[in-house]
Amino acid sequence: MINSEKTYSFFSQNKIADFIESSFKAVGMPNEHAKIISHLMSEADVSGADGHGIFRLPGYIRRIKEGGLNLNPDIRVEREKSGMALVNGDNAQGHLVMKFCADLATKKAKKSGVAWVGVHHSNHAGPAALYAKIPLSENMIGIYVAIGNANHLPPWGGTEMLLSTNPIAIAVPGLKEPSIVLDMATTVAAYGKVKTAAQRGEQMPEGWMIDREGQPLTDPAKSEDGFLLPIGGPKGYGLALMFGLLAGTLNGAAFGKDVIDFNADFKTATNTGQFVVAIDIASFSDVGTFKSNVDDIYRTMKNSPTLPGYDEVLLPGEQSHKKRMNRIKNGIPLHDELLETLNKTARDLGVEPLKKT
Amino acid sequence: MINSEKTYSFFSQNKIADFIESSFKAVGMPNEHAKIISHLMSEADVSGADGHGIFRLPGYIRRIKEGGLNLNPDIRVEREKSGMALVNGDNAQGHLVMKFCADLATKKAKKSGVAWVGVHHSNHAGPAALYAKIPLSENMIGIYVAIGNANHLPPWGGTEMLLSTNPIAIAVPGLKEPSIVLDMATTVAAYGKVKTAAQRGEQMPEGWMIDREGQPLTDPAKSEDGFLLPIGGPKGYGLALMFGLLAGTLNGAAFGKDVIDFNADFKTATNTGQFVVAIDIASFSDVGTFKSNVDDIYRTMKNSPTLPGYDEVLLPGEQSHKKRMNRIKNGIPLHDELLETLNKTARDLGVEPLKKT
Repeated sequence: MINSEKTYSFFSQNKIADFIESSFKAVGMPNEHAKIISHLMSEADVSGADGHGIFRLPGYIRRIKEGGLNLNPDIRVEREKSGMALVNGDNAQGHLVMKFCADLATKKAKKSGVAWVGVHHSNHAGPAALYAKIPLSENMIGIYVAIGNANHLPPWGGTEMLLSTNPIAIAVPGLKEPSIVLDMATTVAAYGKVKTAAQRGEQMPEGWMIDREGQPLTDPAKSEDGFLLPIGGPKGYGLALMFGLLAGTLNGAAFGKDVIDFNADFKTATNTGQFVVAIDIASFSDVGTFKSNVDDIYRTMKNSPTLPGYDEVLLPGEQSHKKRMNRIKNGIPLHDELLETLNKTARDLGVEPLKKT
Repeated sequence: MINSEKTYSFFSQNKIADFIESSFKAVGMPNEHAKIISHLMSEADVSGADGHGIFRLPGYIRRIKEGGLNLNPDIRVEREKSGMALVNGDNAQGHLVMKFCADLATKKAKKSGVAWVGVHHSNHAGPAALYAKIPLSENMIGIYVAIGNANHLPPWGGTEMLLSTNPIAIAVPGLKEPSIVLDMATTVAAYGKVKTAAQRGEQMPEGWMIDREGQPLTDPAKSEDGFLLPIGGPKGYGLALMFGLLAGTLNGAAFGKDVIDFNADFKTATNTGQFVVAIDIASFSDVGTFKSNVDDIYRTMKNSPTLPGYDEVLLPGEQSHKKRMNRIKNGIPLHDELLETLNKTARDLGVEPLKKT
């Protein structure tokens, strides 16, 4: 994705996190919240989720300034049984809400074996993998599903954008091999990738989007003239729809026509719906045996022969893991265009800008 | 899919179920089990899952005759917490095992709100939707995931068939509109569809399978020379892999290299893994309000405008629902080839054959 080294500057994860934290504080967010969110956002950047980290900061700041976000939320459990909880996110920043939900699911699953926590009145929370990975440290499997914050997908065969990219992430811990972490939109491309391509002035491959006549659309600057394509045609549409019913309708969150386009409306509460499931491995099996079996699967896939034209078989999350290792060492690349946008936001807030080194 | 009316005969669901029940009894299955399985298999046929109903009977009978199935199983809970259970299927017919698991998940979810039941030493259980739909009658949402019983899918970019079509079904109840029921393989086509096409002498469309050089494979008679394609390329591979870890590895069931090809080996226990999740709607929301909101989503999708070339927008499960209504009225069509195969099985067992009317 990186066109030319000259157009990128590199920053440490700490520097990125500090910049985000300062920006949120400058706009009135409580210190403790700014710390949690900036850490999670910088985790997105260091893991290679370029469309979901610091890239989103100007939009988040604008939403706060225009009154669309609750800076002093009371995130709370509204309904609860041993295997589930329904949380009211009280229109807080999504990262705060989903950290609360993933921690709660993990805590509950220690007793119940499996716990499902749904939420309404949440907000955009960054990449799905962030929350599926939270249960890993407690020897659990994590699942996270979200309703996207703008509808870019029509039902299969339709033209009205009633669905979002509704992503799923599933994280399974290994023993010596890296965790296997799937993080995918139910569309061929996530809309964040379209936005990143537009910002970088790059064309999109055919198959990401079509226009209203059903013809391929490859210029991300014209993304408003068309819509995303679901994976596997009707199957991806089906997944996006069912994930919407589970993450939205079941929780009393917005789905379908009720979804607020958070790139166009910075004032209205989005009532975003998400859910997270924590699965306690020890309830099913010996943890060491399980992790060792996951390693076996990892190596079996990794070492299997390739098709003509392919160098290697990749595991879900492997590219992200490699990017993470690389970025921890060499820094997170920020494109000049993005840096300029971020520093404009910083100047407006009276925050120290990010300086090229 | 139906080429010519002349090559099909039509049978009532009862007639199909009776034939299956008699066949199982003739091969030594306890009456009570034969009744449960024949009902579920006939439900597959009446709902249009042609590759998963009576079509499978000769293979099931052969497995019993060759000693690959346990006719007197002790299906039992091995581990249990409030939000989960791990079941040992004791190598029983999959339909019996999964009915046990779906009933158990439903019962547990009444107390815990959400319950996840995994299983090892199960077997092929027919179409995924059958088990996702079981919780519906108790005002619950059902989710079912299974490891397919033969590996036809390599990891993305690979050539070694280490994965199956690992399907997922999700069923959500409506109020006045039909339930929304997604039932999909993580491959573009389920292998059952390939088998059905082969039996009918039909060609497959491009995109279902490729050969070992990566070229399209469209003759189902040559399906052994290639492999299925996952939906969305690496995404479908990722889903198939994660579903395998959740339904197989977590439960101590076979996954990857350990999967037994049940079309080639009729003697070895398959150790099939599946899981079912029941989600009690009343734990999250008022049931009537929820169902009415699901109806709204149904109608919004259904009544939305279509792309050039599409007559209507379909909901997941809508085609199956329509087929069901039609087949209840007009009978289940069985192709002459299939009828001949079934009646050969019947003659071998001393069972009354299915007669054309």
